[in-house]
Amino acid sequence: MTLKLYADRMSQPSRAIIIFCKLNGIDFEEVKIDLSRRQHLTPEFREINPMKKVPAMVDGRFKLSESHAILMYLACVFPGVADHWYPADVFTRAKIHSVLDWHHSNLRRGAASYVLNSTLAPALGLPLNPEAAAEGEKLLSASLMKIETVWLKGKGRFLLGSFQPSIADLSLVCEIMQLELVDEKDRERIMGPHPKVLKWIDDTKKATRPHFDEVHSILFKVKEKMKKLQSDGSVGESTRKTSPRSKM
Amino acid sequence: MTLKLYADRMSQPSRAIIIFCKLNGIDFEEVKIDLSRRQHLTPEFREINPMKKVPAMVDGRFKLSESHAILMYLACVFPGVADHWYPADVFTRAKIHSVLDWHHSNLRRGAASYVLNSTLAPALGLPLNPEAAAEGEKLLSASLMKIETVWLKGKGRFLLGSFQPSIADLSLVCEIMQLELVDEKDRERIMGPHPKVLKWIDDTKKATRPHFDEVHSILFKVKEKMKKLQSDGSVGESTRKTSPRSKM
Repeated sequence: MTLKLYADRMSQPSRAIIIFCKLNGIDFEEVKIDLSRRQHLTPEFREINPMKKVPAMVDGRFKLSESHAILMYLACVFPGVADHWYPADVFTRAKIHSVLDWHHSNLRRGAASYVLNSTLAPALGLPLNPEAAAEGEKLLSASLMKIETVWLKGKGRFLLGSFQPSIADLSLVCEIMQLELVDEKDRERIMGPHPKVLKWIDDTKKATRPHFDEVHSILFKVKEKMKKLQSDGSVGESTRKTSPRSKM
Repeated sequence: MTLKLYADRMSQPSRAIIIFCKLNGIDFEEVKIDLSRRQHLTPEFREINPMKKVPAMVDGRFKLSESHAILMYLACVFPGVADHWYPADVFTRAKIHSVLDWHHSNLRRGAASYVLNSTLAPALGLPLNPEAAAEGEKLLSASLMKIETVWLKGKGRFLLGSFQPSIADLSLVCEIMQLELVDEKDRERIMGPHPKVLKWIDDTKKATRPHFDEVHSILFKVKEKMKKLQSDGSVGESTRKTSPRSKM
């Protein structure tokens, strides 16, 4: 029975798992759960993941949610996944767990909150929230600084000084890619002070091509649509009453 | 060289690791990093953990931060840790990872924010924040409901239907214990609707005695001190200017 991935490519952890499977020749069926159409809230999807979140996975009779747990599971059970993705060495593995745990309360929380509240909210039928966006940006910038000065220390081009990417590189870079949705000036202001982070993103893209670009192409399409809707004047106000969901 | 744990027993993940070591006969030196005295911000501690957070661990030359990563590392490298704490079975282990990942953005975020903003802030020289407390309580209550209806499903008394506790039980119960600091009526309002959660907390306490009680005794002492300070009228205003740190 083929592995089933319940995902929305607009969700950064969904993209990380899809790219991981493609890179490692893991055969899977991608089941789209459209967040903008609230498909994650249906009774059918609740049977797959009672937490009502994507990504989620079904492998035979085994159901699993949470992207880091899924990446670790896939790396362990599918033959042919190269060791560098989730090294068997207990010390390297522990450090990868540390980065992934840190990610939850720092980079992910900051980036997701900033992108949602500064840009994405109207496309989900929610108002923009400049105060929450500013709060998110603060945590995001502090997190990028920690990646620059702590996690990217060492000889290699990847996190923890590694010479090849791990699931941590994939997870964190997919998170930062969400910033492609925001205004270019804002993105430059936030990313500019972190040259090592920018180089690492580029190195991770190169190491995971062509799948990285293909799976991320949706972001650029959505950005174009959002720009068009903005120029039509139908998205962007902070007190919208109708949802442009059907237009996305 | 003895394992060194840098911890403050007022921090819930610090307590989880100390209890885990004591339960499993892991020899360790507890180095107190007093958060209320800002010892986590010193240059000395930054050498141990550049993220400036407790808990952190040094095992020989190996440094590690993030409590879940530390628990998993300890379970893997110390002989004599019973399998139920972090089962080798790939499916059970994946489910434990899923609970621990979920914990970061749900129970921990809700509980920590609620306790800080409703109660603990003045003891750290910060103002109370009723709005943030209400927001925290909402996420905390939703998380407790998920534990009640999803994670505590199954035959056994512990998370994921297990018959013996895992590192996930320890981590999550230590988090909820932080609610001992808040007003009893508030605690009852929040915990009351979740009878399975209350029973599971009790079962986890019983399975980890006497270490659980010993390591948590600080909470009750601090609560007494806070009550005394409150009745003196020196703590509890939301616009305090001086810190009662020296009194704690």
